[in-house]
Amino acid sequence: MATLLHIDSSVLSGEASLSRSLANTFREAWREQHPDGTVIHRDLAVDPVPHITAAAWTAGHAPASGRTPDQAAAFATRLELIEELERADAVLIGAPMHNYSIPSTLKAWLDNVFLPGRTTGEAPSAKGTPAVVVASRGGSYAPGTPREGFEFVQNYLRAVLRDSLCLDLDFIVPELTLAPRNPGMSDLVPLYEASRVRAFEDAKTKAKALVERLG
Amino acid sequence: MATLLHIDSSVLSGEASLSRSLANTFREAWREQHPDGTVIHRDLAVDPVPHITAAAWTAGHAPASGRTPDQAAAFATRLELIEELERADAVLIGAPMHNYSIPSTLKAWLDNVFLPGRTTGEAPSAKGTPAVVVASRGGSYAPGTPREGFEFVQNYLRAVLRDSLCLDLDFIVPELTLAPRNPGMSDLVPLYEASRVRAFEDAKTKAKALVERLG
Repeated sequence: MATLLHIDSSVLSGEASLSRSLANTFREAWREQHPDGTVIHRDLAVDPVPHITAAAWTAGHAPASGRTPDQAAAFATRLELIEELERADAVLIGAPMHNYSIPSTLKAWLDNVFLPGRTTGEAPSAKGTPAVVVASRGGSYAPGTPREGFEFVQNYLRAVLRDSLCLDLDFIVPELTLAPRNPGMSDLVPLYEASRVRAFEDAKTKAKALVERLG
Repeated sequence: MATLLHIDSSVLSGEASLSRSLANTFREAWREQHPDGTVIHRDLAVDPVPHITAAAWTAGHAPASGRTPDQAAAFATRLELIEELERADAVLIGAPMHNYSIPSTLKAWLDNVFLPGRTTGEAPSAKGTPAVVVASRGGSYAPGTPREGFEFVQNYLRAVLRDSLCLDLDFIVPELTLAPRNPGMSDLVPLYEASRVRAFEDAKTKAKALVERLG
């Protein structure tokens, strides 16, 4: 029975959030193929995980038997998040761009699951798990655009999810989402609309491809 | 009377945190020159500011008179942080690298103060304010090193603090701080020690240079 770990981090809810809408589309396409599958949904905007603390961080470097009660309690939260990731057959993350980077809630999740010697290092425990990130953004930061140098979502997630946790990382990237609301971007509305259509197609085709690959 | 806004974000406390030790050195050097000055200290590890919420975010785009009670309450917190930044004659930020990027608590602070049309945009309200960031890191991510592509602290803060808030940004960068504790990095201990000495010198000279410049 396959398990999908679905993480949302947009502060907006429902249809107002394109990353949520796309993640839902992906999830439904995945679920059609896995009617008996399990979806674990973490909504970081509604229930944020704690920021990493000194106790939680140092606990990761101490042997289990040597932890203080504070460290043990803080580490239990990390372990829950780490085991959720390790048990997942696939990971789906909504990562809207907030001020050129990921939401602070998603960074807090990452800081909790990043554990050298377990999730990162020589033999990362979730190595090879497919992960699809919906990286929606208000503008365009594609190679060759004027704002290319301000892209700290995909570039950062490649460094941590792909190159550190060693997940098998793929992106769905709807861009220019501010175009319909920003008068200065009215010329870009057609590009936004095309990007949106492509992203919904991507969500469906990537979910199906994933199911086929996992068998 | 000069005001220094001092923000810490390391989860470690006291001497265990190099970013805190260096920020304190900077602050003391600044205070010697400004015995009557005001230091506003925000310790984000001890008292984190809220993650941005839908109410706080959308409030920033609504006219004050059109805000719901939820939006008004959420915006009041943002405004407190924004006014603190705007009132500062200089800003000092401890930004240790956590998993190649800034701590989630510092991202939450940024998401609160980033307000298009006020702190960013045509006439950013804190434009030109000097800001010194203590960007400590466990390894080295300097240009030419193998891990250069994993640097998402200075590169990101240039995009937001320098190019968006238009602060006059400078860095103090102690690197290889893990060398004394990581057996695999023992060769790098002398480089770490040199970097540490240089960083403390930097903290003093940059504080003095700042005082002279501000007059």
